[in-house]
Amino acid sequence: MNAPVLAVSRRTRRTPLSSRIEALGVGGYTVYNHMLLATSFGSPVNDYNHLKRNVQLWDVGCERQVQIQGPDAARLVQMMTVRDLSKSVVGQCLYVPLVDVDGSMINDPVALKLAEDRYWLSISDSDVLLWAKGLAYGLGLDVSIDEPNVWPMAVQGPKADDLMVVIFGEAVRDIRFFRFAELEFKGHSLNVARSGWSKQGGFEIYVDDPVIGPELWDALWDAGQAFDVAPGCPNLIERVEGGLLSYGNDMTREHNPLECGLDRYCQLDKDFESIGKAALVQIQKEGIKRAVRGLKISGDPVSSCVEAWPIHDGNKVVGQVTTAAYSPDFESNLAFAMLDRDHWTPGQILQALTPDGQTRDAVVSELPFTQDN
Amino acid sequence: MNAPVLAVSRRTRRTPLSSRIEALGVGGYTVYNHMLLATSFGSPVNDYNHLKRNVQLWDVGCERQVQIQGPDAARLVQMMTVRDLSKSVVGQCLYVPLVDVDGSMINDPVALKLAEDRYWLSISDSDVLLWAKGLAYGLGLDVSIDEPNVWPMAVQGPKADDLMVVIFGEAVRDIRFFRFAELEFKGHSLNVARSGWSKQGGFEIYVDDPVIGPELWDALWDAGQAFDVAPGCPNLIERVEGGLLSYGNDMTREHNPLECGLDRYCQLDKDFESIGKAALVQIQKEGIKRAVRGLKISGDPVSSCVEAWPIHDGNKVVGQVTTAAYSPDFESNLAFAMLDRDHWTPGQILQALTPDGQTRDAVVSELPFTQDN
Repeated sequence: MNAPVLAVSRRTRRTPLSSRIEALGVGGYTVYNHMLLATSFGSPVNDYNHLKRNVQLWDVGCERQVQIQGPDAARLVQMMTVRDLSKSVVGQCLYVPLVDVDGSMINDPVALKLAEDRYWLSISDSDVLLWAKGLAYGLGLDVSIDEPNVWPMAVQGPKADDLMVVIFGEAVRDIRFFRFAELEFKGHSLNVARSGWSKQGGFEIYVDDPVIGPELWDALWDAGQAFDVAPGCPNLIERVEGGLLSYGNDMTREHNPLECGLDRYCQLDKDFESIGKAALVQIQKEGIKRAVRGLKISGDPVSSCVEAWPIHDGNKVVGQVTTAAYSPDFESNLAFAMLDRDHWTPGQILQALTPDGQTRDAVVSELPFTQDN
Repeated sequence: MNAPVLAVSRRTRRTPLSSRIEALGVGGYTVYNHMLLATSFGSPVNDYNHLKRNVQLWDVGCERQVQIQGPDAARLVQMMTVRDLSKSVVGQCLYVPLVDVDGSMINDPVALKLAEDRYWLSISDSDVLLWAKGLAYGLGLDVSIDEPNVWPMAVQGPKADDLMVVIFGEAVRDIRFFRFAELEFKGHSLNVARSGWSKQGGFEIYVDDPVIGPELWDALWDAGQAFDVAPGCPNLIERVEGGLLSYGNDMTREHNPLECGLDRYCQLDKDFESIGKAALVQIQKEGIKRAVRGLKISGDPVSSCVEAWPIHDGNKVVGQVTTAAYSPDFESNLAFAMLDRDHWTPGQILQALTPDGQTRDAVVSELPFTQDN
């Protein structure tokens, strides 16, 4: 059963752009933060080829914002992550692994610092709102926490700058990577960030109005005709190539950020107040016992990974594959795997047991993949 | 676009019984607590007719358990709800609306009191684990909180007792409504509760082993041949008939339990420690401004409710439909609606604007529906 039907209800929330992408032939959905997220428009391979060469419009309204504001907002956001935010500035997007007191991953949002006392956490798929509210209540913090009516839209691909300029003007080009600026569309001010869930460049527009959203989509669509625009969505093949881990797939509450290769977002030697820091300091001292690596898996194109696939080193189970896809550009199956310590060295040859019953050679690789590793 | 394809991944977790229900022709899925939940086996009407007359096996592994244990477990569970738990006993299942400090609904689990210091919250679709962990950290409570490997299976329908007796013996008949007992299957002890997400009677079995689960399913399936057993799932038509509100559909974080008709689970005059009680006392004093009611909607069978439908009283918008289904046994469309105060009187005739463009008469009704109301 590879393609079951999704029964939609009010609980699997639509976005203001759902009607747009349905008119353009969305081929599949997943549910993300209790909201619909497109997964393909016909063929993931076609989507991938187009994304790497042109520009796409994505409805990523499911990237819900957890808004934290008030006198204790900065303190709470800092407590929730092990990234040192003391030097962060307004207008910055910050990738912040969130961890609990055991150092286990809760989510990995991008934090938008809107003001010294106001943040949006643009979350992956877990109810960070409840975590933040629980902490705020328990600690007696002076903050308000809510999920505002914001549905991000992404413009991704190498032609994204050129398309965005038509709508927002040349100011778009000045937005640096992982910064955002307020730009106007039809007199409506919108936060526009140079970011997005691909490695092809582009922007995320934080649409905060259900009427402006479709109008902006239509304007981008019309202007996009000159740039071979297409509808798109986070693409499995492209994200594997690019080493983009997905919370819930490749990292879960069973993992800590050191195991997920997020060391550079863990400033464990700095002095700041963080719920999970002490646990991670201890874990770092003892050394992690497993870590995410890339795998190049031999043979015919594999199916996507619906359940973890076991990885063997001879007779021993040494890890599991959590995401896999065949990459046309690499002419190889690429995968993410969580591997045990003695079996994670790049170049090491392991065996992946794929659902088709085959045992395939799997070569450990650094992430992101390169043609050489 | 009524039946989009669901793209499954490791993030939309399978259960130990997914392979069983797929072999039996599951017709659709939704995602619930980041896990697959069947929504039909062919036709919701056939499922409904069968459920009301026979017995069904349901894979409701998505009813995740939030386990709270330790010296402060009882205190934390009490703080999370406005139901007075002081007289609760081990072996009891307790429907507990969870609310935040504003009295807003976080979830509406069934709490299983496993011991004086150990509870399972069998949750609806939101990450209660994160809420509980946030509170516990912030308040410095001595509890441990996790999501154990428990995947409930339900046996529902009027023949449920007779089928369960074949597997578990006559002890099954002694389990009272919303109580659970430990029963054995192949030497493995399982919590079995007389409960479930239908009004047709039956049991939920808290399967805590991924191997025992399919073995138990197969045993029930084989024994069930004598009782016209079929695979099933929570049924939209039956739940509307029965007045079973769904968190995320009919009640959300924008509502409080008084608006949702859950007054009898809110002991606001009792003295116990609860996060949301003060807010709800105040709301009760001022009087709620809207409430859930039933609606009988005229005309041809309506489609299911993917987005809220507006309800008018003349020219005025006075509420919204959140769930709707045509009931063969009532020979009427039945719906849940959140209605404003001056428009919620049973018998009142309002107008529902359905997605087919029609304006239909909608008669306000008490819940649950009866043939007379």
